Formats: sequence, structure tokens, C-alpha cells
Amino acid sequence: MLGNWFTAAAWPLNTEVQQQSEARQRLLTKPPGSLGRLETLAIRLSGMQGQLQPRLNNILIVVFAADHGVAEESVSVFPQIVTTEMVRNFARGGAAISVLARRLGAELQVVDMGTAHPPGDLPGVLNQRIAAGTANFMCKPAMSNEQCHMALKRGKQAVDRALDTGVDLFIGGEMGIANTTAAAAVACALLGRPAVELAGPGTGLNHEGISHKVKLIDTAIAQYADKLGSPLAILQTLGGFEIAALSGAFIAAAQAGIPFLVDGFIASVAMLVAARLNPGVLDWGFYAHRSAEPGHDRVLEALNAEPLLDLGMRLGEGSGAAVAAAAAILRDACALHNQMATFSEAGVSTSE
Amino acid sequence: MLGNWFTAAAWPLNTEVQQQSEARQRLLTKPPGSLGRLETLAIRLSGMQGQLQPRLNNILIVVFAADHGVAEESVSVFPQIVTTEMVRNFARGGAAISVLARRLGAELQVVDMGTAHPPGDLPGVLNQRIAAGTANFMCKPAMSNEQCHMALKRGKQAVDRALDTGVDLFIGGEMGIANTTAAAAVACALLGRPAVELAGPGTGLNHEGISHKVKLIDTAIAQYADKLGSPLAILQTLGGFEIAALSGAFIAAAQAGIPFLVDGFIASVAMLVAARLNPGVLDWGFYAHRSAEPGHDRVLEALNAEPLLDLGMRLGEGSGAAVAAAAAILRDACALHNQMATFSEAGVSTSE
Repeated sequence: MLGNWFTAAAWPLNTEVQQQSEARQRLLTKPPGSLGRLETLAIRLSGMQGQLQPRLNNILIVVFAADHGVAEESVSVFPQIVTTEMVRNFARGGAAISVLARRLGAELQVVDMGTAHPPGDLPGVLNQRIAAGTANFMCKPAMSNEQCHMALKRGKQAVDRALDTGVDLFIGGEMGIANTTAAAAVACALLGRPAVELAGPGTGLNHEGISHKVKLIDTAIAQYADKLGSPLAILQTLGGFEIAALSGAFIAAAQAGIPFLVDGFIASVAMLVAARLNPGVLDWGFYAHRSAEPGHDRVLEALNAEPLLDLGMRLGEGSGAAVAAAAAILRDACALHNQMATFSEAGVSTSE
Repeated sequence: MLGNWFTAAAWPLNTEVQQQSEARQRLLTKPPGSLGRLETLAIRLSGMQGQLQPRLNNILIVVFAADHGVAEESVSVFPQIVTTEMVRNFARGGAAISVLARRLGAELQVVDMGTAHPPGDLPGVLNQRIAAGTANFMCKPAMSNEQCHMALKRGKQAVDRALDTGVDLFIGGEMGIANTTAAAAVACALLGRPAVELAGPGTGLNHEGISHKVKLIDTAIAQYADKLGSPLAILQTLGGFEIAALSGAFIAAAQAGIPFLVDGFIASVAMLVAARLNPGVLDWGFYAHRSAEPGHDRVLEALNAEPLLDLGMRLGEGSGAAVAAAAAILRDACALHNQMATFSEAGVSTSE
């Protein structure tokens, strides 16, 4: 993999500023540690941004949408056309992520990586189509090597576009009917676990549907057994355009020194791929929430991740509903860190 | 207790609107249930407010501050003067709750219920002093019967003031050195549990300090054994002015039909008292977070409460840091419920 852009080092954390920031936390008018994770979140952000007073003013949300060949195996309760319909819904502002982006005052970009049914020209939707969906991995690898590299690069390009505008926090989302199947397959292959541990209901499969999904994934992994030797090969064979784009975006954000927020199951699988390709990426991600999709727990565990929220959500989509509240938590952490009085400023006695 | 204002019925939920609201959730462009608790929160708020489109524009935070006679038993690492100093810090805008109130665009009122050292006239601080702190319950009951009724009433008055301004969400906070000791004692007596299960480090006691606190609480409860026969007697004997005010405020909010957010350990103990005095209050509260104070778990369990956040916080104070993020979650729930497109509006196919 040497020579690929995605193996270049992540931006170094500013440990000096981070230590100063830790010292500031001890001076604020509250018992030490009493703000819990809000303290460590602000301190981490300080080290990332190299600023004693971290800020999260400028938030960018990029939703990558793509279709999946494996959808033809009846692994979703929704028809494939919904991917395209939801891209239109994003553009018109009626989807959950549209509402939440407005709540955050965040810019929302949608990238069409390759839906089966092209949505046509839409405001706020970038046409970066690689193909009309991936191939059905039950028959052949989901992507060619070239397509997989292209999809990773699309993620980097999303971050590159953000650099000009001085983004403080990057949020990556996804939309694609059948993408919990692709994500679960990638996670199974990366973690060496059977599908029963990682496949779940997605948008609403019943018990029978999940069994079918599990069987398909186990069959696919057995069939490609000798071709899944690297994270890149796994991504190419079982993944999807939007999953690869998220992995690429997370790596590029870490390289550019931009903190990012990882959403639920699919984004976390993309993060796992990213971390296997480039472990430095782990320093730069926050985890929004623990999804109701049962495989998420195991992926979070593999990432040693502690999500900010646990609200039983499983929407995915554009980093879904968790993002607004999770970003609000990060913003609270910054506001407290930056605006609270110190003991001496406030004339408050310290502990005995 | 018949004839006391606090036993009058809570405002009835509008179950008809709540059912319509549930129906609306099923039409929004997402897999049913995929927004997890954000769906049920919005539906509950609909039923409370009697509106298909719930709103949380106008948020009021009232912090009740008071001192505790039991502070002289060395149950806190901070000196008693800190209660007064923090009241000044609230007024000047340097405390955590001050920062978070600004983040929420919420009004912050501070009520001096009786600090040991009067803070003097301060902007935004109401003088409603009952006494210069409660009595030390190791020697005599913390409050007289009259004081306890006055303190409960102060909570109701805070809600009454809010009625004029059309508050959508009430948040009650507290400040008082040694008030985790009083709250733990109240919880022990209400739940019939030994202090070892409910007393914790508070602002930062070490293991030895906690043992001392546990012993004091168990001794006090044994000493008043025959006088703790009702929730009101328990509150009067072991509680505090600010704890009683919170209980009164929660009851009055439920009676007025105003949803409220319960903070951490102390506010949850006040909620437990409120629920024992008037079970209808339970319908009207949301729980902000699971505190790091170990006794909180048992109190939440007794309330059958599922908090919104779990961030390892234990600040208390003005409902502390949890409140802003928890209120943001409730606001997200409303925004999604109110602004998302339905399947038919967006032209998105439903599940097969």
C-alpha cells in the first residue's frame, strides 16, 4: 500500500496546548472532574485545533449516497429506488439530516456516488457517480480496484473542498439501500467474526430476513476467503462507494487536522476500515451515538470507542439524528471550557 | 396531607393529540422507529403540550441555593462559604449553568433560599431566604414543619412566575455545600436502604470521607426512626430548602402542565419526594443524565427513569452541564417531528 495517499501520516496533535488546556480545566469554578466527559472532550479538541479555546462554529455535513448490487438479494424492506428518492428529499430539506443540519447551522452537501437511478440535477447534490451502484457481491466483487480507489478519493475531495472554508468539525453521513448488509460483511471480514454477530435488522428486517442476510454474508465471505487479505481488498470486495468515501474522508480529515464525528453502524465500519488503513485516524474521531443496530456494539468495541449518545437510533442516512445532539455536546464542552470563570476570577474558595 | 396544594392533581395529558402525533411519526421519511427515543420524546411532548407540533422555544432555568447545617460535620471538601460565592458566580455569568443557559438562550433565575452567608443584593438573584441554612440534622430536624412548607411553596412560586411568560420547559437546579449528604439521607429514608448504597463522593470526598458520610446518615436515620413515617416528614427532617423547593417546583410544573427536565442526583431525589407526595408528577418529567454520583442509579431505578445522557458528570449546581445537551436532544426531537417531510410529501416509496 506504500505510496497511496491514504497511508500518509495524520496531523500531529498539539500536546503542549492540550496540557495547557488541561491546566485551565482545573482552574474553572467547579469540583475537578465534575463536568465528566465534557472536560476531556474540550481538552481533546484543544489538542486537535492547537488552541486553548477550541471552537466548533463551522460544521460541515457531507452525505454520500450510493446503491448496492446486493440489494437484489432482498436484504432490505425498502426498494432500491428509495436511495434516489431520499437524495431528492435531502435536496428539498425534508429528511432528518436536513432538519438537523439547519438546527446546527451546518452546511449540508450531498454527493451522488452512484445511485441505481440517477436523481438528475439537484441543488446541493454533487454528481460524482462512479457507476449505477456496486456489483452484487454474491456474484462478483462489489467494486473494481480502480472504483474502490476512486471512491476513497471522493471522500478526500469532500474534505479538500472543506479546507477552503475553515471547517471546525466534519460530519460524514451515508444513504444507500442495503448498505447495512455491505457494512456488516466488511466488518465480519475485518474482525474475523461470523455474520450472526454483525448483521441486524437495518431499516426493519424481521427475524427471518435477518437470518437470510446472515446466510448471504457468511456465504460471500467463504467464497472470497483467499481474496480478503487486506482492508483494501475487503472494502473493494464487500463494501460500497459511500462506505469507501466515508473511510477516505475520515483519513483525509485526520491528515488535514480536522476533527470529525462518526455516526452509527455504517460510518463506524467505514472508520474501522480507515483505522486499518491508517491507525493515526483514530486520534481525530468522536463517536456520536450507540446505534440500535446490534452489530454496532462490536464495531465500537474494536475501535475502543465510547459514543456520546445512546438514544436507540438506527437511521444512518446523513449521520442521522444523533449528530445534532452530539455536536451540541461538543459545543457545550467548548463553551464551558472557554467561558466559565476560574476560581480566582470568581472569588470562589477552593477545596480544603 | 389532604388540603395541601401539592396534592392537587397534575394537568392531564392530551392523549388524543398524542395519538395523532404518533400517527404523524409513522408518515415521516425514515424507517419507523429509526429515530429511537427522539420519536417517543416528541410524542410525549405533544401529549403534554396538547399540540401536534410541540415546541421548546422558551426555556426557564431556576437555581435554588441554600446551606445545610450538616456541613459542620465535615461532609464536603469545600467550605460552606462556597455556596454564597457560587451564587455570586451565577449572577456574574461565570458558572457552568450560566454558560449553558446562554447556549440554550434560556432565562436563568437564582433563588437564595437561605445561604449561611447572605450574598447581598445581586442582579438576577431573588432573596427568598427562609433561614441562614437548615439545622444540622445530626442534632435536630433540618427544618421546622413551617419551614418545609415554605420551601416547597417557593418552588411553586418559581413556576407561577414562569406561567406569565409561557414557558415551554422548566429546568430546576440547586447549589448547596453538603447537599449530597442531605439528598442521600432523604433517599435512604424514602427507599428504606442503607447509606452505603446512596452516599457518594459529592464534590470529591475520598474513601474515608465517604465512610464518614455513610456513618452519619445511618446514625441520623436510626435516631429519627419513629419520625420518618411520611415523605413530608422525611423531607423536613433530613432534606434542605433547595431540595424542597425543587420538589415543590416539579409538582407545580406538573399541575400547570409544564414539562420539566430533572438534572442529576439531588434533583432526582427531589423528584422522588415529589412523586411520593403526588404520583401524577411522574408524567411531566424528563431526566437529563445519569450522574457519576453512585447513588443516582438507585434513585433513577426507583423512578423508573431513563436519562437522556450518560457523560460521567456530577456537577449538580444549576442542573449542571447535562441540561444544555439534554434540552438540545428534546429540541432535536421536536424539530424532526415538526419539520421532516412525510413519505407522500417527499415522493419516497414506503417499505415493501
